[in-house]
Amino acid sequence: MPALDVAGEFETIDRLLKPLAHPEWGRGLADDVAVLPSRPGYDLVLTKDMLVEGVHFLPEDPMDTVARKLLRVNLSDLAAKGAEPFGYLLACAWSERCGWPERKAFAAGLAQDQVQFSVLLLGGDTVKTSGPASFSLTGLGWVPKDRAISRAGAQVGDLVFVTGQIGDGRLGLRAARGELSLEPERIEALAAHYRMPMPRVDFADVVRDFASASVDVSDGLAADLTHIATASGVGLTMNLNVLPLSTAAQAWFADRVDPQLSLEELATGGDDYEIAFTAHPRHEEALRHLAESRFLRLTRIGEVTAGTGLTVLYDDQPIQLARTGWTHG
Amino acid sequence: MPALDVAGEFETIDRLLKPLAHPEWGRGLADDVAVLPSRPGYDLVLTKDMLVEGVHFLPEDPMDTVARKLLRVNLSDLAAKGAEPFGYLLACAWSERCGWPERKAFAAGLAQDQVQFSVLLLGGDTVKTSGPASFSLTGLGWVPKDRAISRAGAQVGDLVFVTGQIGDGRLGLRAARGELSLEPERIEALAAHYRMPMPRVDFADVVRDFASASVDVSDGLAADLTHIATASGVGLTMNLNVLPLSTAAQAWFADRVDPQLSLEELATGGDDYEIAFTAHPRHEEALRHLAESRFLRLTRIGEVTAGTGLTVLYDDQPIQLARTGWTHG
Repeated sequence: MPALDVAGEFETIDRLLKPLAHPEWGRGLADDVAVLPSRPGYDLVLTKDMLVEGVHFLPEDPMDTVARKLLRVNLSDLAAKGAEPFGYLLACAWSERCGWPERKAFAAGLAQDQVQFSVLLLGGDTVKTSGPASFSLTGLGWVPKDRAISRAGAQVGDLVFVTGQIGDGRLGLRAARGELSLEPERIEALAAHYRMPMPRVDFADVVRDFASASVDVSDGLAADLTHIATASGVGLTMNLNVLPLSTAAQAWFADRVDPQLSLEELATGGDDYEIAFTAHPRHEEALRHLAESRFLRLTRIGEVTAGTGLTVLYDDQPIQLARTGWTHG
Repeated sequence: MPALDVAGEFETIDRLLKPLAHPEWGRGLADDVAVLPSRPGYDLVLTKDMLVEGVHFLPEDPMDTVARKLLRVNLSDLAAKGAEPFGYLLACAWSERCGWPERKAFAAGLAQDQVQFSVLLLGGDTVKTSGPASFSLTGLGWVPKDRAISRAGAQVGDLVFVTGQIGDGRLGLRAARGELSLEPERIEALAAHYRMPMPRVDFADVVRDFASASVDVSDGLAADLTHIATASGVGLTMNLNVLPLSTAAQAWFADRVDPQLSLEELATGGDDYEIAFTAHPRHEEALRHLAESRFLRLTRIGEVTAGTGLTVLYDDQPIQLARTGWTHG
């Protein structure tokens, strides 16, 4: 029920969130809305992802990383569509563990990422819940008119690429839960990726200029590539043998008795927040060059074929995955 | 933790939410984003409100009314700014009681209100939670360029108006909890208002054309008028004796032993979703005429004065309120 708590909502907004607000469009968070001028020649790209305690982050995760993960998973969606982020709306349902220090840490995490990714807070809502905390964020970005990349658009003969590393999301969750036996610095690196992934905002313009279809890797690489295949009405292949692994994931992988099953786990684990996309082979050279100049790993992981769905290859043979991805719903 | 649940997220999106989607901008919910073309000559107005089970709705409330309340509290924010709604993004954290029938009812409720208020779903997210359900909605509307009404702008000499009735939000909550002894049809009317308020979308254009400052009544009339006073740097008066009550609220009021305290409860209770606004006295005639032609009650409840904050009058005397409003944060 509504509870009288002057030190809650109003203080949280005034002292913690107002300093994060867009000076004009956010109306100083002193109104119930944000007001955005039209930007002729551009489309507005909107995305909305939610994080729930115990589902998308762990109850003991520090609140600054929770806030940054929340922002970053949304920035990842925008980047995969070729959009440049500029702002966000935020709704917080604080749980009982979210006292003033936790809220302060949450806002401090947002402040850091606002600088890193050039975004500002536009508005939102803050409430309390008796259950696990949950946070919802609406991310906003601009893309030149009609230039947003969709999941549809992959053409037979295109190549399939993925940025960065795959599997750290899944291993990071297991590391954060203490389920992995690896050297402490590996554990730390993996858990850090789970708590605070790196959205590929810096690669959004390249995706926009070269990709025929694109998606961010949140459900799991196999599931997300299947999304592209379905939306584009084509088939995609994915070669498990060339799955790009981080140093930490390689260390984990070196100890596995069943390499195929281990790669399957990483290719279906999700929470990677890399960009998987298709592009015409004539762009491969330019893509490799652009990725290299931005210190970003880029792996050609498959191709677009006639047919439907995703074909996973291991040692050049098609294999069946036990499952394609996680769902949260 | 992520859970494999094919009958959850994907089915919910495919079978329940896709039929609600904007055919173009929502990309059939088959992408992670919505893409909106610029609308030259208009500003985009965005709002984001969250409902948490046990805080903003009761665990036994039917899910169709929960969905409609969620949409309506956001439409209310847009209307108070003079914006015409066109779409929304939705994030659902389903609790364990939200099986298929509950999700279906939720979507059916949205479908009804989409027709009633001319809005379409643009995108969002659906997840599960082990705790109380929570829902977050981002509402979008258009307003002619630079014409959005803010909380600032009230001028000394303006009059203060409020649409509809005040107090049904507060009494509705008590009715829904079984705390009121009134005739069953009164209880039902009040509970219905709590579960499914009526946002004043039909009055948005009037607010835009005539209001100097405006706010929707969500925190409580006294608190929301204080917001206008603070943002505008003026004083406001509110005359408790003319508080517009519904028939059901009048029935409740007739039995009170302390009329002043009872009116205070209604003026501070919140959840009314009426529009409180200020306007120059020369507009009073036009406002009354427009409200009447739309079958909407409009009450002149106070005026804007030099000074600061809200002065509440009862029997022509300034009184002190025990509290000004509820907070949820």
